[in-house]
Amino acid sequence: MRISELARRGEVPVGTVKFYLREGLLPAGRSTSATQASYDEQHVARLTLIRVLTGIGGLSLAVTRDVLAAIDAPPKSLHDLLGAAHSALGGELSASEDARERARGLVDRLGWQVSDQALALGQLAAGIDGLAAAGFPATDDELTRYAAAAGEIARGDVAGVPTGPAQEVIRYVVTKTVLAEPILLALRRLAQEDVSARGVGG
Amino acid sequence: MRISELARRGEVPVGTVKFYLREGLLPAGRSTSATQASYDEQHVARLTLIRVLTGIGGLSLAVTRDVLAAIDAPPKSLHDLLGAAHSALGGELSASEDARERARGLVDRLGWQVSDQALALGQLAAGIDGLAAAGFPATDDELTRYAAAAGEIARGDVAGVPTGPAQEVIRYVVTKTVLAEPILLALRRLAQEDVSARGVGG
Repeated sequence: MRISELARRGEVPVGTVKFYLREGLLPAGRSTSATQASYDEQHVARLTLIRVLTGIGGLSLAVTRDVLAAIDAPPKSLHDLLGAAHSALGGELSASEDARERARGLVDRLGWQVSDQALALGQLAAGIDGLAAAGFPATDDELTRYAAAAGEIARGDVAGVPTGPAQEVIRYVVTKTVLAEPILLALRRLAQEDVSARGVGG
Repeated sequence: MRISELARRGEVPVGTVKFYLREGLLPAGRSTSATQASYDEQHVARLTLIRVLTGIGGLSLAVTRDVLAAIDAPPKSLHDLLGAAHSALGGELSASEDARERARGLVDRLGWQVSDQALALGQLAAGIDGLAAAGFPATDDELTRYAAAAGEIARGDVAGVPTGPAQEVIRYVVTKTVLAEPILLALRRLAQEDVSARGVGG
């Protein structure tokens, strides 16, 4: 298909497709003349993924580039896939030593097998710092409660990973990790609305 | 205190404090001369909140402004407080009619009391559209599973709301809603790492 058809199928303007091609986010098409190229279904899928990751996924172009690189890298085990996906998604966040120890302590208390290098440990610590700075420090009970819910979610997430070509597996893991986040947060807000409508705790 | 002390306490550069003052995010200090003003502990608390919301909270300046307005507005019930906080946080997202019906259907099936005007319904629908566009549509089971975890979290969230001056309550609700989100997402990633390290589903 031509670039105009690719843009229509991917639901973005032609200029955006050209931009992604220039930036290398989208692989070049097969040249059919000096000024024209032909694109296939893989281009449509990749373009749609970029649109969704940068749209509802809320990722910057730089992070999207890293996520796509993780998808394209030759994956090893599911565990390595997840690590690559998380690395692509989460930048290093600055956090206090205290908060880092608290994050590590929580994970250890839960008996979770988590590497000290996990970027999400820094994200958790930064969140703990943020709540403390805002004047509402997270209690241990609260963190344990969030962790229990997160554990439930993760068990289902990992169990749902399909078997199949490695490329497809990492695309699934990355996509679900990014795109389930707004769903989860929206559901938390809806559940808060329900609980408060019933007058519990209010 | 003077502006330099305020900046030090709020852990931001003086230029940033001046910017927030100009933008009206931070209320003016008490004038002590033609060119100087004096600031108090409330300024420190507000400045810290702005730093945290725009930092780890990931909010844009425009959304931060709306969140601060929700905090400053005279609140009525806890339910209205939550509604104001959610409105401030979530912009209207475009979503398909199908996804909106699916979101509404899920909430109804769960028996949640949620208004049709809830912005989070649109966010949920946009997330459902995003996963479908990426080629991994969310199943009903998956959405129900996320909803169960979100319900658990929300029950604790709402039960944890303190009694006290209304202003303090809304500051708590907004802060916890925004700042618990990165914590929750970090914990999900850590739990995924743990589950996959144990080789479940991999």
